[in-house]
Formats: sequence, C-alpha cells, structure tokens
Amino acid sequence: MSDPGRVLAVDVGGTWTKAAVVEGGPEDPAVRARRRVRTPRCADGTENAEAVVALVAELAARFAERDHGPVEAVGVVVPGIVQDGVGVHSVNLGWRDYPFREALAKAVGAPVAFGHDVAAAGLAEWRLGAARGLTDVVVMPIGTGIASALILGGRPLTGGYAGEIGHVDIGHGEQCPCGQRGCLDHVASAASVARRFGERSGRTVRGSAEVLRAARAGDRVAAEVWDEAVTALTRGVLLLATLLGPQRVVLGGGLALAGEALTGPLNRRLTEQITFQRRPELRCAAFGAESGCIGAALLAWEAVAP
Amino acid sequence: MSDPGRVLAVDVGGTWTKAAVVEGGPEDPAVRARRRVRTPRCADGTENAEAVVALVAELAARFAERDHGPVEAVGVVVPGIVQDGVGVHSVNLGWRDYPFREALAKAVGAPVAFGHDVAAAGLAEWRLGAARGLTDVVVMPIGTGIASALILGGRPLTGGYAGEIGHVDIGHGEQCPCGQRGCLDHVASAASVARRFGERSGRTVRGSAEVLRAARAGDRVAAEVWDEAVTALTRGVLLLATLLGPQRVVLGGGLALAGEALTGPLNRRLTEQITFQRRPELRCAAFGAESGCIGAALLAWEAVAP
Repeated sequence: MSDPGRVLAVDVGGTWTKAAVVEGGPEDPAVRARRRVRTPRCADGTENAEAVVALVAELAARFAERDHGPVEAVGVVVPGIVQDGVGVHSVNLGWRDYPFREALAKAVGAPVAFGHDVAAAGLAEWRLGAARGLTDVVVMPIGTGIASALILGGRPLTGGYAGEIGHVDIGHGEQCPCGQRGCLDHVASAASVARRFGERSGRTVRGSAEVLRAARAGDRVAAEVWDEAVTALTRGVLLLATLLGPQRVVLGGGLALAGEALTGPLNRRLTEQITFQRRPELRCAAFGAESGCIGAALLAWEAVAP
Repeated sequence: MSDPGRVLAVDVGGTWTKAAVVEGGPEDPAVRARRRVRTPRCADGTENAEAVVALVAELAARFAERDHGPVEAVGVVVPGIVQDGVGVHSVNLGWRDYPFREALAKAVGAPVAFGHDVAAAGLAEWRLGAARGLTDVVVMPIGTGIASALILGGRPLTGGYAGEIGHVDIGHGEQCPCGQRGCLDHVASAASVARRFGERSGRTVRGSAEVLRAARAGDRVAAEVWDEAVTALTRGVLLLATLLGPQRVVLGGGLALAGEALTGPLNRRLTEQITFQRRPELRCAAFGAESGCIGAALLAWEAVAP
C-alpha cells in the first residue's frame, strides 16, 4: 500500500477531547502528536455540538500551522447515539439530532469522517488490538460514561442504537441522569468512581486513578468505591455473556488503565457468578485510552481510500 | 421454484415436542399434520437426548406409515445452547455436548437438519412473519423457558451462545435452577407463571393460559402472578432496547398467545420506563407457538436445497 498520508483524529469525550496526528496508515498507525483539551460544556446541547465543531476546526488549523503540516483527512468521533452522520443524542453532552458530518465538512478544510467514539474504539481494538482475530467480542470503554462496541458473527454492529451497556439496570437503585435507576454507568464509570469517592470522603480527586491509588494506600472509602465499581462491572460483563456470548470482553477507557487491579477482582467474581454461559476472557484495551483516537484515524483513512 | 416436497418438522420443547408435516416450501409453508407429545424426561441428560432422537425416528416412521407418505427431509430443533450440530447444554433437559446431528442422521432414514429452537423460531418470524423486512429485531419465544433470536444488522446471529435473555438478572432475587438469582425465566416463562400460581393458590393449573383466565375472572392471586410476569418482561425488553436497540421485539411461545393481555400492559410499562433508548415496537409472533416448527421446516428445506 502506498503511503496513505497523515490524518487528524479527534475523539470527543464527555470530559476531555483528545486529538492526534496519526501516520502510517490503517495497518500500522502511529500517533505522532497529541493534544488534550477540555470538551466544551455549554448550557445547551446544540451549543455544545457547535462548540465541538469549532474546536475541531481550530485543532485542524493549529496542527497545520505548527510543524506537523497539513493533514489529508480528519476523523471525528463523539459519544452517545450516532446515526448517518448525525449526533442523535448524548446523555453527557446534551445534543439531539445535530448534523455533525455536514457541519464538520463546512468547518474543516479537508475531507471529514464522522463516527461513534465507542464504535471507533471497537474498530481499532478489533482490527489491530486486543480483539484482533475474534468473531464475537465486546469492546467496552470505561471513561466519563460506559458504552460498548459489539462485534458479532465476525462483523461490527454499526446500527447506532446498540451497545448502551452503561445504562442497563444492575440493581443498585440510585437515580441516573439518563432518567432510569440502577445504571451501571452511575457506579462504575471512571467519572462515577471519582464522584462517589468525593461524595463519601469529602475530598476532591481528579479521576479514578487517584481513587485506586488511595485504595492501595489503605483508604477504606476508596477501597469501598473501587470494590462497588468492580461488583457493578461484573454484573455488566455477566449480562453480556448471557445475552451475547462473546469470546472476549475488552475493557478500555481511563478505568482500564488500572490493568490487573481491575481485571483481577473482575475475573474472580465472574468465575464465582457465571454458570452455564460461555466464559468470556477479559482483556484490557491494547491502545489504552487511545483506542477511540486510533479508530477515528481509521475512519479518516477509509474516507479518503482510493 | 419447483415443488420442494414435504418435510417433517420437530420442535423439541422443555415440556412438549411438536411435530408436523409441512408442505409448500420455504416461501409459503403450510402445516398439514400436527402431533404433540410429551418431551421425554429421564433422570439423566444424555438419556433425555437419546430419548429425543428415538422419538424423532419414531415420529418419522409413524408419519410415513400413515396417509401422510414419506418426507423428503427432517428438521429438528432443540432448546439450550446449540453449536455445530451439538446440543452443548440445556438447562431444562439436562444434556451436555450431545452430538444430535450425527445421532439423528443415523436414526432417521432421511436427510436431517438440526438447529436451535429459538433461532429457528426467529428465522420463521423474520423470513415470513412478524419480523419480516426488519434489520434489527429480537424474537423472544416464551414457553417452558425464555430465550431470544437476535437479528442484527440485517443478519440472524447464529453463534450458538447468544440470546439467553431468560437468564439475565432482573432483580427479583429468587434462585433459578440455572444457578443464578433473579432470572427473567423464573418469573415470566409460561411454565413459571403456572408454577407460581400453583405455589400461591394451592391449585394445579395446566398452563399460563389458565392463570390468565383466572385473572380475568377476578382471581387476585392469578392477577398478581400475571402482573409480576409482565413487570419482569418489561425489564427484559428494556434491557434489549438498551443493549441492542431493536426496531421490534416479537413475543412468541405459549405466553404470547395471550395477545393484547400481554402486549397491552407491557407496552404501557415500557413507555413509562424507557428514556433515551429507541422504543421497540412489540408484536406477537405471526405463527403463534408454531414459529419453531415452521423454522425447523425451513432448515429441513435448506438441507435438501439443490
């Protein structure tokens, strides 16, 4: 394959937006320049969406100006429900039916690919990472929220509505901002782990990694919050095993950077609780919290493939 | 298409085995002769499987003997986890890793197709019935047990492990024979509705239809048991909406013969509880409790297709 050129990949998260110039093409992508900026948070969902589009245009211009040079295409992925270039809904960022692909194409002076953050992360892990070579696998990034990319029967499911494992009721009874009770997300997302520790300890932490460090240092509240997240995730993985029977579940996002501190207790509890279902292997994402960005780069290359 | 001939279709259920001669071919199947016999129940799972094989051979011989004449092929579908012609496991019938396809081929003097009862029901409803023309649909027969056939992205999922919606934890806390607690099946299957009414009322009923009749006649215990089943099924459908986002959920099996008495309250509760998910339409199976049998006939025709 000839040099497919460099692309700008932008992964819009609930808290942080990660951007990178990615080189090397879809078989062997290499992240060459990274930037992380706060995702714009306005009072209104449509304003949030417009601010995201402006941010992408600004990032593209800034990368081009600096020593990185122009990019061949831009890949942008966002959370929530995404269908046919439209951000149908994001619980965290509030937009409804915003025409991202169209708006980005106008705002950015390069071909634009637009997609779903978690589907993109799933694509990256399935083509190149911890889900490679499998026919039935769930890739579950755990960041500000929790969702999942489903690869079933050897094919990624790209319907737009599937995979919202963060908002299944796992029985804890607490009210979730989505309007339901008991959502996995509300106890086990990286943001929820930090929030719950803050609520109980009165201390402010910047993220779930800090909670894990506190737990390891003997903080009982931190250990309790971490344990509750693992308990909740076990129920989520069990549900996936029952309903979808994947060969493997790949954990991604910020929380999965914990590695063995997450997969160790999760594996033990899954073994205790699973009965007739196929036991999925648990792995952490090969690209860590960068799967979404690499997936966005894959989409960008697809958009300009000859 | 030339006359594809008549086939024998056998749907092995947890309680009843339904057999029929089906004519007319895969575009327009017509059930011409029906038999219903009790599914053999032995102490041991392997004996159960062997008894099922013997029963199919006997049914084939008996249908051939009588005025129905010989069949071109036999389609047999069984519950549980089925993969590559093997009955991997059935919670209700107890077998593990029984080589059905091989054993049936030896025992029956005609080409044999073997498959999963719920996948077959899904195929029938998707090709010809209440799920026709849709790309994302879940077909959920509710009989002795509850499972589901998943058609996702325009393709039936045939992995063998997926779809066990009957054994997701919906939070009622009761112990299920599968080893887990809170299973949907244990409260909402047709068999469970009959069992729970019997336990609470001290009366023996033959099936869920009798419980519904009692509820309609003003029996408070029956109304309570039916209501708990609907509540549980609402949680099951909500889970499917969250995780898979189907356009439609087709309810089948004996319980769905209740029609509006089931879909009415289920629709109302789903509307109350659903928030951001795509709202699936609810339909009852076009072939009622015969979807599995018609699916088995489709498999039989596929096995002898030129």
